[in-house]
Amino acid sequence: MTPPTVSSSSRSIRVRLAGDAADRSYTVVIGSGVLGGLGAAIHSRPTDSVNASRAIIVADSAVLVSHAAAAEASLQAAGIDTQTLTVLAGESAKSVTEAARLWSELAHLAADRHTHIVAVGGGVVGDLTGFVAATFARGLPFWQVPTTLMAQVDSAVGGKTGINLDAGKNLVGAFWQPLGVVADVNTLATLPEREFKSGLAEVVKYGMILDAQFFGWLETNAHSVMARDPAAILYVVERSVALKADVVERDEHERSGLRAVLNYGHTFAHAFETTAGYGVLLHGEAVAIGMACAARLAMELGHIGADIVARQDRLLESLGLPLRAPCLRHTPAEKLLAVMARDKKAVAGRLNFVLPERLGHVGLVGGIDPSLVCRVLMQSLLSDCPA
Amino acid sequence: MTPPTVSSSSRSIRVRLAGDAADRSYTVVIGSGVLGGLGAAIHSRPTDSVNASRAIIVADSAVLVSHAAAAEASLQAAGIDTQTLTVLAGESAKSVTEAARLWSELAHLAADRHTHIVAVGGGVVGDLTGFVAATFARGLPFWQVPTTLMAQVDSAVGGKTGINLDAGKNLVGAFWQPLGVVADVNTLATLPEREFKSGLAEVVKYGMILDAQFFGWLETNAHSVMARDPAAILYVVERSVALKADVVERDEHERSGLRAVLNYGHTFAHAFETTAGYGVLLHGEAVAIGMACAARLAMELGHIGADIVARQDRLLESLGLPLRAPCLRHTPAEKLLAVMARDKKAVAGRLNFVLPERLGHVGLVGGIDPSLVCRVLMQSLLSDCPA
Repeated sequence: MTPPTVSSSSRSIRVRLAGDAADRSYTVVIGSGVLGGLGAAIHSRPTDSVNASRAIIVADSAVLVSHAAAAEASLQAAGIDTQTLTVLAGESAKSVTEAARLWSELAHLAADRHTHIVAVGGGVVGDLTGFVAATFARGLPFWQVPTTLMAQVDSAVGGKTGINLDAGKNLVGAFWQPLGVVADVNTLATLPEREFKSGLAEVVKYGMILDAQFFGWLETNAHSVMARDPAAILYVVERSVALKADVVERDEHERSGLRAVLNYGHTFAHAFETTAGYGVLLHGEAVAIGMACAARLAMELGHIGADIVARQDRLLESLGLPLRAPCLRHTPAEKLLAVMARDKKAVAGRLNFVLPERLGHVGLVGGIDPSLVCRVLMQSLLSDCPA
Repeated sequence: MTPPTVSSSSRSIRVRLAGDAADRSYTVVIGSGVLGGLGAAIHSRPTDSVNASRAIIVADSAVLVSHAAAAEASLQAAGIDTQTLTVLAGESAKSVTEAARLWSELAHLAADRHTHIVAVGGGVVGDLTGFVAATFARGLPFWQVPTTLMAQVDSAVGGKTGINLDAGKNLVGAFWQPLGVVADVNTLATLPEREFKSGLAEVVKYGMILDAQFFGWLETNAHSVMARDPAAILYVVERSVALKADVVERDEHERSGLRAVLNYGHTFAHAFETTAGYGVLLHGEAVAIGMACAARLAMELGHIGADIVARQDRLLESLGLPLRAPCLRHTPAEKLLAVMARDKKAVAGRLNFVLPERLGHVGLVGGIDPSLVCRVLMQSLLSDCPA
């Protein structure tokens, strides 16, 4: 077995998890060409003293065949027996039906607790596959190989897995950390433009919630980022993962309220996605509109000035992201409010929002007057507010 | 609010769990009339500093209305807002379909991370409800109120939750510990005879795997147990829970192999249940037949003598439990072997069995010749073995 080729421009970020099992900590490898090292990485992580000898790849059908094939080749080169399952691309795959199909497939392939499950693709396949891995045989070893910007900067790190119900996004899921994440930025070169921009919404989010300096860097370098300059992209992914890892380490299970900051814009976004129908808005598009709403709500409450709202608007626009959701213009705001009340951060149906307090800092705000939320939604959706 | 009435004949057994959250440890309260203390117990366990103010009971439709009503009354007396959902009794309720229905119900009831989910009933409702609680909103606080002997001595303690697939029992699930277990032995007085005997199979198991003295006590006191003498029943539940808690504390997630001892007889049993069709054999009946097979397998391998097999047979028979499965007499043994290969303890399709080494002690044995397993199955099922 030859050693893996790891590019000199790769970075490793460690996610250090507390708890009874210190070995739940894991590494996110980010770089150009790092996919070739996947098999060696898996081989080096035995489970309960059993070396990895078998893996099942679950690949998004939208993933370039070359990415799934590269993952397979790397596993096989490391002597790991590999089979591949495919799921349809798109948010609608995060369903009970698709989870049930994968559970059956794993049963028929006789997957056991030493079979490593490897998600190759975007956030949808990662979330769905992670949930299936978390729950089959009460938990299989799991790896993330994100091939979209959204997955590399956000969804593949941190252990949140889940599927959607008709009633709301991610309502069913588990915290299930991967044994490792391999984020090969080369896979982003061929990502469709709309998908690429969608991922940038989460990048802007990290600047807004945690790092004013990074926000400033994005303002200055928006052009290089949009041109997918390799150095700029590597920095964007690396900085985003480092910021997220720091939050996840301190509040893995969303207990202290700290991890909730990552949901900036998401209470609005989930309601937009649920109401528009899964897949109409890309997740990042909904997050961009949600952040525009959240910033306006913070301004109405006197937490931030109009200058911060304007800077966020400008950065989102310069990255090709929407601020409004005209596709929802005929949706009554009360319907969106009802979906928001089912949000996982809600307590007894009362809305809690993550709102900016200054650039690079947010707080959890409860007890907000629904009519104010309604007014903000009305502006955003260009729809009428019910009396 | 009046303090709960706790019978003087109650026992508390603590399940001490290691890990980042020491507060995952919990108490199993066992006794006559302890159901009245449920509300106070839940009220005294805040989640993330939020006091319990809301609970959703999931009750088995076979549970006497009086048990579910008593649980409701106790919660309401403690000032906890309560709603009740019902699931059909029987193994077939442990399905993806029923889990999906409960997830939707919870969404429509706007359950949030401070809504306590309380399973009232037997092992089926506990396993199903626990899985739904583990996965809705990535985990809700969960309580077990077992009302069958099987659930009180076994399934309600230890955090294993799950549902069945067509391909096998409990293939999908999660480790999700309850915040507490309230086992009121009064509920056993009205338990149908076949259900009662089914639970005794797990009780015999505890003696066989961990406690020769308890096994001897059961031999001596089989008549009092079958007559449901209150003191005998209290001791049976208490001793079984104490033995199980000790194992769960030392290997919560079935990693070291220690917890696998609890699966004595279960590799065979799961195959019988899966093949006969869920619900044809009660779980305990399948476990009794499975233990009869496992003991014979151990004898064939020279691990134990015929005397141990005979003592186990006699005790099972004196407790009204079966040793053979004539309902499966036309099932080819190879079909059962194929189901066993998908067992969660299997590694790469190779069978591992928990087998007795002496009374009160078992070990995990791998690499057993399938033709030997086949011969044991043939005796047990009274069927022909394929060449």
